[in-house]
Amino acid sequence: MAVFSEHFLMRDAHQPGEKIVLLVMDGLGGLPLETGGKTELETAHTPNLDRMAAEGSIGLSIPVRAGIEPGSGPAHLSLFGYDPIQYEIGRGVLEAMGIGFALDKNDLAARGNFATVAADGTITDRRAGRINTDECVRLAAKLQAATGASLPGYEVFVRPVEEHRFVLVIRGAGLGGDLSETDPLVTGKKPMLVEDQSGTAEGAHSAALVNRWVEGARAVIADELKANSLNLRGLAKDPGLPSFGEIYGLRAAAIAVYPMYKGVARLVGMETIEFAGDRPHHEIEALERMWNEYDFFFIHIKKTDSYAEDGNFDAKVHEIEAVDAVMPRILALNPGCVIVTGDHSTPAKLRSHSWHPVPTLLWSPRAMPDAVQTFGERACAGGHMGVFHATTLLPQAMAHAGRLKRFGA
Amino acid sequence: MAVFSEHFLMRDAHQPGEKIVLLVMDGLGGLPLETGGKTELETAHTPNLDRMAAEGSIGLSIPVRAGIEPGSGPAHLSLFGYDPIQYEIGRGVLEAMGIGFALDKNDLAARGNFATVAADGTITDRRAGRINTDECVRLAAKLQAATGASLPGYEVFVRPVEEHRFVLVIRGAGLGGDLSETDPLVTGKKPMLVEDQSGTAEGAHSAALVNRWVEGARAVIADELKANSLNLRGLAKDPGLPSFGEIYGLRAAAIAVYPMYKGVARLVGMETIEFAGDRPHHEIEALERMWNEYDFFFIHIKKTDSYAEDGNFDAKVHEIEAVDAVMPRILALNPGCVIVTGDHSTPAKLRSHSWHPVPTLLWSPRAMPDAVQTFGERACAGGHMGVFHATTLLPQAMAHAGRLKRFGA
Repeated sequence: MAVFSEHFLMRDAHQPGEKIVLLVMDGLGGLPLETGGKTELETAHTPNLDRMAAEGSIGLSIPVRAGIEPGSGPAHLSLFGYDPIQYEIGRGVLEAMGIGFALDKNDLAARGNFATVAADGTITDRRAGRINTDECVRLAAKLQAATGASLPGYEVFVRPVEEHRFVLVIRGAGLGGDLSETDPLVTGKKPMLVEDQSGTAEGAHSAALVNRWVEGARAVIADELKANSLNLRGLAKDPGLPSFGEIYGLRAAAIAVYPMYKGVARLVGMETIEFAGDRPHHEIEALERMWNEYDFFFIHIKKTDSYAEDGNFDAKVHEIEAVDAVMPRILALNPGCVIVTGDHSTPAKLRSHSWHPVPTLLWSPRAMPDAVQTFGERACAGGHMGVFHATTLLPQAMAHAGRLKRFGA
Repeated sequence: MAVFSEHFLMRDAHQPGEKIVLLVMDGLGGLPLETGGKTELETAHTPNLDRMAAEGSIGLSIPVRAGIEPGSGPAHLSLFGYDPIQYEIGRGVLEAMGIGFALDKNDLAARGNFATVAADGTITDRRAGRINTDECVRLAAKLQAATGASLPGYEVFVRPVEEHRFVLVIRGAGLGGDLSETDPLVTGKKPMLVEDQSGTAEGAHSAALVNRWVEGARAVIADELKANSLNLRGLAKDPGLPSFGEIYGLRAAAIAVYPMYKGVARLVGMETIEFAGDRPHHEIEALERMWNEYDFFFIHIKKTDSYAEDGNFDAKVHEIEAVDAVMPRILALNPGCVIVTGDHSTPAKLRSHSWHPVPTLLWSPRAMPDAVQTFGERACAGGHMGVFHATTLLPQAMAHAGRLKRFGA
C-alpha cells in the first residue's frame, strides 16, 4: 500500500465544523489465545462501543505498512496523519517532548539509560536494576551539576524521566548528523562510541561532542552502586513537522497520562491538558472540563498495551471495558465525530506490539452504518471502512465533522 | 490512499475483447434517514441489480481520497481512470466541453454567470433571478455581437449554457496563468477583478485581457432588468489529458443527458451519442442502436443526484428502480462487463454530495460471485472488490472483458 500525503488537500479544504475526538487504546488489536477463541476486544463486554459500531462505520487500520510492527511514535504519527516513513522522529526527541522539555529546533536530544557495568567495563545490567524514579531524579541532578557546563560553547541539560531513563539535551550551534547509539543492546559487552553515519562535518563534530560528554558523565557516576554507567540512544533533532493545527485548521489538545504520548502530540503542535488521576474516567473529566476550548481531542489510554505486553489477557479485557463505560459521557458532549482505535495491535498472546491491522470505529451522525452490531476484529473485517492506511483516518474524521469543503466543481 | 497510474500498464497490455458498459448513477451512494433504517439503494426494489450482485462482484469505491467530497468533474475523471489530483481540470473547460464547444488547446475558457447588481455595483442576485434559458440565449448573442471583436488580436466566443450560465472563450496566442474569479460568492459585495496567481507574464497579460472584456461586457448589458452584470469563474485551459482511446485501446462513447457529463467524456476523447428523450430507457435505446459502433459505453443517469440534492429520498429510490428496470436490456446485448456505480455519494439526508465510499457492482461472465444477494451499501462493505480507489475500476473492467494480456511471463 502506497501512502499519499493528504496534507495539501486538508490545508486547502478545511473549514469550521463540529468537534472531533480521537480515542486511542494503545495496542488495542489482539489475537485469540486459542484456535476458535475470541480476541481481547471480542471478549470484552462493550455495549456502548457495540452500539456505536452499529450506528457508525468500522474497519481495519494499517499503522505504517502491511506487515510492519510499529513503535509508539510512528504509530501515533500515522494516526495524526503524518506518514512515519516520510517523517522520521528520533527517540531522543520523543523522550524530551514527553517530559515537557522545551526543545529548540537546533537542540540535539538523546534518550539516556542508566546501566550497571562490571570492573572491566562490560555491561551487566542495561537498566541498572530498574532503579526507582527517586534515584533517577538524584542521579540526573548530580549529572546536571557536574556536566552542565562541561562542553564549552554548549549548554547541557540532563533531565530525569522514570526508573532508569533520562533525557540528555545539548544546545548550541552546528549540531546534527546521523549518530549511532552507545548501547550494544545485550549484556556482557562494553558500550560503544557514538559514530556519525552522515559523513558531514556537523555529524563528526556532534559525535565527538557527545562522546566527550559520555566519558565525563560516566566518571561522575562511577562510584554509584547500581547506576555506575549510562548509555545514549536515539540521538536526534526535532525534524520540524508541519503543524497539525495549520494542516487541519483545528485547535488540538492531547489528554494522556504517559509522557511519551504527550510528547508526540506536542511534536505536531497539539497542546496538552493536565489533569489529576490516571484512569479513563479521569481523562474524560479533563475532556468535559476543556470541551469548549478545543476543536480536536486526542485521548490516550495506555494500560491496554501495558497489560498485553505483560501477557495479561484478562486485565486488557477489563481495561477495554473501563473505556467502554465512559463512552456515553463522550457522546453526551455532542461531538461531530468520534474515532475509537489503537495505535497498533498488542496481542496478549504475543506479549508484544504486532503488525496486525487495528480494529477501528468511526461514529458520527453522518456515518454510514455497517451491517455489523459489534466492535471487534472479525466484525471490522466486514466494515464500511475496509482495510485502510491509518494516515487516512484524520481526513475521514474531518469529513464526518463537516470540516471539509468540496474538492472541484 | 495513494494512487498509482495504471495508464502505462493499460497501454502495454490492452488487446481486443468484449464490450464494456459503465453505468453511472450520479450520487448513487446514500445514508439511512434514521438510525437502523435503509439507504436509498437498499430501499429500492432492484431485482435485476440484486441478481447481478449475486452473480458478480461488489465493493465500495473511493472517488478521490478518503474523506474527500468530490465535485462531478473530478469524480468522473476518477471513474475513467484519471487521478483528479494529478489531472486538475478547470470548471470553464468542463463547461465549454459540456456544450460541445470545440475548444482549442490554447483557448482560455471561463464559466460565466449572469448576475443582478444594484446601482452602486454590489451584487443583489448572483444568478440574476435564474433567468430562463431563452433569455440566456438572447443575452449571449447580444454579448457576442458587441464584444466578439473587442480584444484586438483575439477571437471572443460567448455561448449560452442554461438559465443564468454561459461560457466565455478567448482564442489567441500567449494565454495562460493561474487566474482568480470575479465572483465574491456572496451578495452585498462588488465583483472582483481577475488576478493572476502564477506570477508569469502570460498570466498578467491574460488577467488584463479578461478584465478588459468583463468591463466592456458589463457595459453592454447594464440596461437589462435582471441580468445587468456578470461574473466569471473557473478560468482555465484544456490540460490536454492523455487519450482514453489510446490508453485502453477502446472506441468509447458517452450517453448522457446533461452537458457537464458529455463535456468530461469529450475531455478524455470519448465521442458522444445524441438521442431523443431524457429517461433511462431513452439512454438504453441509444445504447442498443449504437452497440456495434463502439467497444465502451459510459451511460450517465443524472436524476439520482438531483433528487438527493433536493432531499427527495423517495424520488431517488424510484429513479434507481427505473434504472434497475432497464438492466435486462443491457445484459441482452451480451456485454463482457457491466459496471454499475456512482461518481460519488449524495445522501438525500445531507442534500449534498458526500465523501462516503460508493456502492459498486461489477457484473461479468468472468466475475467472482460474492456471498451477498443484494446490491446496497452494507452488502458492498462485505464484497469481493473491497474498498478500492475509483481509478482502479477501468482496469478491472478491462480484465473482465478479456481485454488485457498477461503481465510478465
